[in-house]
Amino acid sequence: MQRTLVELLAQKRDGEELPAPEIRRLVEAFSRGEFADYQMSAFLMATYFRGLSDGETVALTLAMLHSGKVLDLRSIAGLKVDKHSTGGVGDKVSICLAPLVAACGVRVPMVSGRGLGHTGGTLDKLESIPGFRTDLPVTEFTKIVDEVGTCLIGQTAEIAPADKRIYALRDVTATVESIPLIVASILSKKLAEGIDGLVLDVKVGRGAFMKDHASARALAEALVRVGTQAGKKVVALLTGMDTPLGHAVGNAIETREAIEVLHGRGPSDLAEITLALGSEMLVIGRVYASLDRAREELQRAIEDGRGVRVLERMIEAQHGDPSVASEPAKLSIAQETIDVKANRSGVVVHADALEIGRTAVAMGAGRTRADQPVDHAVGLEVLKKPGDSVKAGDTLARLYVHDRAGGESCAARVEGAYGIADTAPAAGPLVLERLT
Amino acid sequence: MQRTLVELLAQKRDGEELPAPEIRRLVEAFSRGEFADYQMSAFLMATYFRGLSDGETVALTLAMLHSGKVLDLRSIAGLKVDKHSTGGVGDKVSICLAPLVAACGVRVPMVSGRGLGHTGGTLDKLESIPGFRTDLPVTEFTKIVDEVGTCLIGQTAEIAPADKRIYALRDVTATVESIPLIVASILSKKLAEGIDGLVLDVKVGRGAFMKDHASARALAEALVRVGTQAGKKVVALLTGMDTPLGHAVGNAIETREAIEVLHGRGPSDLAEITLALGSEMLVIGRVYASLDRAREELQRAIEDGRGVRVLERMIEAQHGDPSVASEPAKLSIAQETIDVKANRSGVVVHADALEIGRTAVAMGAGRTRADQPVDHAVGLEVLKKPGDSVKAGDTLARLYVHDRAGGESCAARVEGAYGIADTAPAAGPLVLERLT
Repeated sequence: MQRTLVELLAQKRDGEELPAPEIRRLVEAFSRGEFADYQMSAFLMATYFRGLSDGETVALTLAMLHSGKVLDLRSIAGLKVDKHSTGGVGDKVSICLAPLVAACGVRVPMVSGRGLGHTGGTLDKLESIPGFRTDLPVTEFTKIVDEVGTCLIGQTAEIAPADKRIYALRDVTATVESIPLIVASILSKKLAEGIDGLVLDVKVGRGAFMKDHASARALAEALVRVGTQAGKKVVALLTGMDTPLGHAVGNAIETREAIEVLHGRGPSDLAEITLALGSEMLVIGRVYASLDRAREELQRAIEDGRGVRVLERMIEAQHGDPSVASEPAKLSIAQETIDVKANRSGVVVHADALEIGRTAVAMGAGRTRADQPVDHAVGLEVLKKPGDSVKAGDTLARLYVHDRAGGESCAARVEGAYGIADTAPAAGPLVLERLT
Repeated sequence: MQRTLVELLAQKRDGEELPAPEIRRLVEAFSRGEFADYQMSAFLMATYFRGLSDGETVALTLAMLHSGKVLDLRSIAGLKVDKHSTGGVGDKVSICLAPLVAACGVRVPMVSGRGLGHTGGTLDKLESIPGFRTDLPVTEFTKIVDEVGTCLIGQTAEIAPADKRIYALRDVTATVESIPLIVASILSKKLAEGIDGLVLDVKVGRGAFMKDHASARALAEALVRVGTQAGKKVVALLTGMDTPLGHAVGNAIETREAIEVLHGRGPSDLAEITLALGSEMLVIGRVYASLDRAREELQRAIEDGRGVRVLERMIEAQHGDPSVASEPAKLSIAQETIDVKANRSGVVVHADALEIGRTAVAMGAGRTRADQPVDHAVGLEVLKKPGDSVKAGDTLARLYVHDRAGGESCAARVEGAYGIADTAPAAGPLVLERLT
């Protein structure tokens, strides 16, 4: 006799492994409304405590994936590869990476997210480009990926709707921090894009979801194992997120900085992570056999302007003003500035990504509830970063605000996020580890 | 800054103890709809894994208690004492116990439950008395307790409504089996009666919620500790529930048997448990200083008919036909009978309470869903019990049905519930342990 859904829930509670068809049955019943929200949240909490095996995680991923539409990009030649970041402060990599990789011959269908909490979202940043639309239907998305090489849209109601509902539940039931649930959520959305491979940027540190190396590695390993079992080629890089990536934190200001990378003028850390992730994507996409060869090609695509041209075409295809690709200074950034000054001389030892990210949210660049609008124009620049020598009175950071008086408390928070000491900290590598 | 409700949930998930005001805040928010069902079920599952301290359990009990009306019986002289059983098969003790204890001078305000699963419910049994009402308003309940000495009603919407909603959630989220949640649920309802003391009958065995002595003792200990911390005088008896209590299993048939106890004609095990629980209630109610003295008084109240007279007045006050108190044979029991015969000679070694209880449900005496009606007339008598010698062909049990042909499969199940062997099992005591 078939077990009832409550019996399956009790089985998970007791630490027994659920067979894949039973996991599928739970998710399907949830989609139909037969397994209620309050039952799913109990299942999520039981999973928080008991974990899921890789087999269960694959089953959950596939069940959530098949709760919606799965794109079929087989008609488009070549392998399709995407990148996913677990989220950090100043992480605008997708905006320069996707066009650059597409310019080198691998198509990048990318479904991105919005900012929530202290991290920003690629969609919010892109929408600072006048006219740019991220809500394209799946048919148009597919066409743009085919013709331009890349397209960046938001998770539509068609893509993994069960994941969307489960994620909303996790957010309000203290069940976000569960590695198998994170893995299934990420992979169900990414697999819905019809990709052949995926490069993961798993962030570690103060400004990341995973604060320490061990838990970030555990997440990265699970993502690689489960993604591979689901039939995809997956590589994960662990990258540092104690300090914001690049200088810019905000929406228009981050988009501008990402475009600068395509012009060869971006900050070195941002450019370096773009090249590291991009070369993995080109190798997974079988365009180049070695990471070194792939990196050379990416650099050439910056130098000869191919990356900028793909971005230009993508913006145009997505109904935005394509001229910002060659003239990023056209992006509208708030006119008033407040400079945060060093109160002593020495070496910057930290510029806390978490506190800076939270300050950007407080300025209006992010949101604390999913239904809040964001202000695309406000933001800040982290001008001095750990390892930089400063003199008392030097500008550490610059805030871009509409109203100077109102921004002073935010400036004070940014100042508090800085630490200056007599000696420089040991500089760690940008890419901490590579997992395949 | 006050923690958010989700933060409190995360705190419990992480095994931190929640201060009493925070538990109260959660339950109050749940009552107002600000802490949703899906959040409460996640909290319940986290509690299943992490447990609750006694302090947290007291706080949860009081918060659920104060979600509704708490009776104020202080205007009624003397201490008010109730009894609660964790549920068994054939457990009709309340029906004879409450009038008997009231007859000896301790008032017994009793809010009882309905049958669910394999165990019956006192309200269903009492409703087999023509006209008897268990849905009296709180004012009438109080008046009857004062004037008659005892009254038995159901949990109204006014009594511990938060417990009622939480219990319904637990039932469908695999979170029933949590000792602190069981304790808070029982005590919140009982404390709402305005009692000074409580005697608990914690059942152990095949037909009980707690199958083994250790878990039953853990539940009993928690009930006594938490009830005492909540300011009540509490005693718990652990009693065996491998075999149905008394002979009768059903509704009218159990009521009839309970009334027989008040006439001094009840089965010895049922009479013994009634006296054991009743003497605890009289001592807690400070009417007698010793259990022996209290027991003598209870026996006298049986012999001189005081118990029957209180029952009669209670039935009358609750709109039922009072003549059944002196003539229990008037209760309407199904006319057709099926006898279950011994298929060999020997000694009965078991008469499985769980299987017999389930069979009674299948006959129509109980329910598997809360909204099902019950048939008051059907039932069965467990005529031979463990330790009884039988000859092949002797009647082990008798079913009372409306339709003999339809009852045959139930008779076969009852036969299967019996075990007969060559030698008698070691007879255990009825009361296994006493905890204060």
